[in-house]
Amino acid sequence: MSDFEAQRARNAATPTVTTMMEAPLRVTDILRRAEAIFADQRIVSRLAPGVFETMSFAEAGRAARCLASALTSLGVAPGARVATLMWNHGTHLVAYYGIPACGAVLHTLNPRLSPEELAYIIADAGDDVVIVDEDLLPLWREVEAHVSPRHVIVNGKSDGADDIAWADLLEQHEPVDWPQGPFDENTPVAICYTSGTTGRPKGVVYSHRSIILQAFGTIAPDSFNLSARSVTFTLTPMFHVNAWGVPFAALMAGSAVVLPGPRVSADEILDIISAERVSIAFGVPTIWTGVIEALESDKSWDLPENLMLMSGGAAPSPEMFRIFDRHGIYLQTGWGMTETSPIASQTWLLPAHDKMDEHARIKLRASNGLPLPFIDFRIADEDSQPLAWDGTSRGELQCRGPWVTQDYIGHPHPIPATTPDGWLKTGDVAVIRPDGYVQLVDRLKDLIKSGGEWISSVDMENVIAELANVAEAAVIAIPDDKWGERPMALVSPRAGATLTAEQVTLHLQARYPKWMVPDRVEVLDDLPKTGTGKLNKLLMRQTWGLAT
Amino acid sequence: MSDFEAQRARNAATPTVTTMMEAPLRVTDILRRAEAIFADQRIVSRLAPGVFETMSFAEAGRAARCLASALTSLGVAPGARVATLMWNHGTHLVAYYGIPACGAVLHTLNPRLSPEELAYIIADAGDDVVIVDEDLLPLWREVEAHVSPRHVIVNGKSDGADDIAWADLLEQHEPVDWPQGPFDENTPVAICYTSGTTGRPKGVVYSHRSIILQAFGTIAPDSFNLSARSVTFTLTPMFHVNAWGVPFAALMAGSAVVLPGPRVSADEILDIISAERVSIAFGVPTIWTGVIEALESDKSWDLPENLMLMSGGAAPSPEMFRIFDRHGIYLQTGWGMTETSPIASQTWLLPAHDKMDEHARIKLRASNGLPLPFIDFRIADEDSQPLAWDGTSRGELQCRGPWVTQDYIGHPHPIPATTPDGWLKTGDVAVIRPDGYVQLVDRLKDLIKSGGEWISSVDMENVIAELANVAEAAVIAIPDDKWGERPMALVSPRAGATLTAEQVTLHLQARYPKWMVPDRVEVLDDLPKTGTGKLNKLLMRQTWGLAT
Repeated sequence: MSDFEAQRARNAATPTVTTMMEAPLRVTDILRRAEAIFADQRIVSRLAPGVFETMSFAEAGRAARCLASALTSLGVAPGARVATLMWNHGTHLVAYYGIPACGAVLHTLNPRLSPEELAYIIADAGDDVVIVDEDLLPLWREVEAHVSPRHVIVNGKSDGADDIAWADLLEQHEPVDWPQGPFDENTPVAICYTSGTTGRPKGVVYSHRSIILQAFGTIAPDSFNLSARSVTFTLTPMFHVNAWGVPFAALMAGSAVVLPGPRVSADEILDIISAERVSIAFGVPTIWTGVIEALESDKSWDLPENLMLMSGGAAPSPEMFRIFDRHGIYLQTGWGMTETSPIASQTWLLPAHDKMDEHARIKLRASNGLPLPFIDFRIADEDSQPLAWDGTSRGELQCRGPWVTQDYIGHPHPIPATTPDGWLKTGDVAVIRPDGYVQLVDRLKDLIKSGGEWISSVDMENVIAELANVAEAAVIAIPDDKWGERPMALVSPRAGATLTAEQVTLHLQARYPKWMVPDRVEVLDDLPKTGTGKLNKLLMRQTWGLAT
Repeated sequence: MSDFEAQRARNAATPTVTTMMEAPLRVTDILRRAEAIFADQRIVSRLAPGVFETMSFAEAGRAARCLASALTSLGVAPGARVATLMWNHGTHLVAYYGIPACGAVLHTLNPRLSPEELAYIIADAGDDVVIVDEDLLPLWREVEAHVSPRHVIVNGKSDGADDIAWADLLEQHEPVDWPQGPFDENTPVAICYTSGTTGRPKGVVYSHRSIILQAFGTIAPDSFNLSARSVTFTLTPMFHVNAWGVPFAALMAGSAVVLPGPRVSADEILDIISAERVSIAFGVPTIWTGVIEALESDKSWDLPENLMLMSGGAAPSPEMFRIFDRHGIYLQTGWGMTETSPIASQTWLLPAHDKMDEHARIKLRASNGLPLPFIDFRIADEDSQPLAWDGTSRGELQCRGPWVTQDYIGHPHPIPATTPDGWLKTGDVAVIRPDGYVQLVDRLKDLIKSGGEWISSVDMENVIAELANVAEAAVIAIPDDKWGERPMALVSPRAGATLTAEQVTLHLQARYPKWMVPDRVEVLDDLPKTGTGKLNKLLMRQTWGLAT
């Protein structure tokens, strides 16, 4: 035997281990790198109508390191929760990185919730410190009647004797170095609560690892397509599922960050898109409905070429895609929820789809798309048995992957969110096409069962939205002695437009068999919404369903 | 105290853990997902001039799962090393996924090495099985004189009685399911050896985690910009640092894969780019030099719009960027080595650079760029003390991150590759600009010290490359009794062009102080290359340096 063969045989019997470094994924490394190599990139914040503030990534990095130093000196221990009650602006972005930089956990609070709901969430998370925008202090004072975090930091002027001013705090502390060295990337870095349309809100805890892997998945060309040339405009609230992770993904990619502050109008949105040459804006369909009304008004804007709108939180209607297409704006959607960080899928089309007719292509674009890398989807029956990807079998959408939750915060025990074999139960009903595209057809609780047959409220809402004067539509189930349930439609007209219940009924009669057409159609100025701006079907069912 | 406050205080004292699933990163999940959602995407292989074969991702997925089943039945245990001695084609791509799917480790062998070098590497890795392309069997028979892996699988027809035919093997085995369930993502998945220009080649072991994190980094818009609409053409050998990870990144992004097979000519490269509508091609500068000669010949091609060439392995000269710009082709470079998987940086420009004059912009594009996310660079002096990012301080480039090696395979002990504080010592000398762009100025061993002053061989090679008739240039140090070392230039002319030593000397005299101009210039038809196609300066120094 040759020397080489003797060595080969000997080494073949020896296990091999990786020679790669142990290098944990750490959220703070995003801004550490951005501060160094994208130092002059900009963060533009609208603070009020016409009032803007700009800071550079270098300035944001320094401020975040000052905040870390300040929180540590306030006694914030690693693992402690620091809550924010803030709008979308640069100071909130600084908190996104400064809180983790001192080892604490970012807990964003939704100012659209009631004081009592906020107190419940703060108590459940066990928040140690809270950072509040000046104009949210009236709300905060009501929350404070219930809970007393150790410190209240106010971004702006405060009327409270014990409050700490953000500006003073940062001025009084030297920036610390970014944390480096050995580290467990599964350490918690952020907590978000589900919007709680059923039952109490439930907390989901993201890790450094989960946030970063999702960010990698979303900067990809077929997802958000973020580069150092992108200008991001995040209308999605930073208090809601970390604004879809954009504050992390954008800084990883070196993209410019534009933030709308509080209560921005559709006209202002288009003003900002034009002025800042936005390449991608993130928001819910309600926002885009307003933008469409502005676009179709007699005003006009010098919009950037290749503008892309990312829509999430609810399904945009096929009609919305057609309208934006006419304006030369590309609308893209996907699917996700608080439990999936939230971006689990994006709806990009493949070259093969270019040959589809427009109707089929729009239908596909309005679907919930394909899973990001390392995300798995399945549809399952009531026993969690997988169903076929045939485009017709309907089952609960179930999901797994590195940025999907397995349970919720619970005291003393976590609350399970998964099937016995480890898949998240989303509560959405979907079909999966043979090519893997997911199409949500309903929420489990939103399906309407009339005379033993299912009616999809989502399908019917999309059909109603084809009517020119419709702004929003909701279809709910109302109890019926004869049929079990019957569909009812609630519709709001676009601003200044006329819409009657008869128009809606006639339109539906032309598209549906007689038994599926709602017996009752209500036209309302506005449809009820949840704290996160979604249609509040729970409230609608309570208001109209029980009154029958 | 309110109930909420009591609960807040209680929970604040309780540590929070992440609720995210434990979901390991696993290379085989790339093809598992691609097989499902990009089933019809194509892998086109050139097997010989004019001979092409196409398979779909679905077919590749099935074949990989058959291979996994076959290897297991051959007794290949989890962790065993399976070597490939193959060109770039679909069968090799199937092996890239089929070997990990049975839990084994992919070890790609470089057919440009000598039989003795290959035997050394196979012995060092302890390879259990080898898969060989039919046309590489003559080389393999010479290797077999030294080492005897348990099984030899031949892709094609074999003359060996004990060899196993790839086609038979796959036909005889049913596809297994992709591995799922609990798993350590730090498990080895691939081994590559350094090219060993100094000393013996040394093995680097990649993990599932390291391969995937690099793939995420490279599909990003500012890196390779890979999407389901990309058509990748991988001229970089699949036997060399996993072809820069493209076989993993492309399938993650759903990009079409085009592979050139053995010994492809520049004309064929342009034929394939035109026919397949390639969007991005990967290769070393030597390849692009040939492509330039073809482009500037009297032939013409219908090239796709927005064609991008990724150049690595050695620095393309600024002149090469100018030439491709003239042809409407975007050349991009970066930096990496076997020890960094290899892509550590990419040279994208920022919007601010659009205002630069062309000379400065090309110079920046020819630099080694910015680190990918979670990769850290520094330059350090001989004591590994960090030096300033001022664009002038020169030190060894050092690197760390999740896809950077900390050591090499060694028996019985690994061979360290890092500084005491954990940074990879690259052996490259670099400056870092204040904005973070890295510029390699030399290899530590390639610097020329003449009369106590440093001369950069890389700078001088780029200056020589500005001469129209120059194909390649190398500047090496030769011993000199008076000055210690003196530079010597070795230059090859472009095909059919005339070039004299005097032209080179005159050109250098116009650009350099007299003491820096080489005393000796040799014009050769071809410059000596290593097995991986790089300029072999070690051999040049041995041939010319010692002969002085």
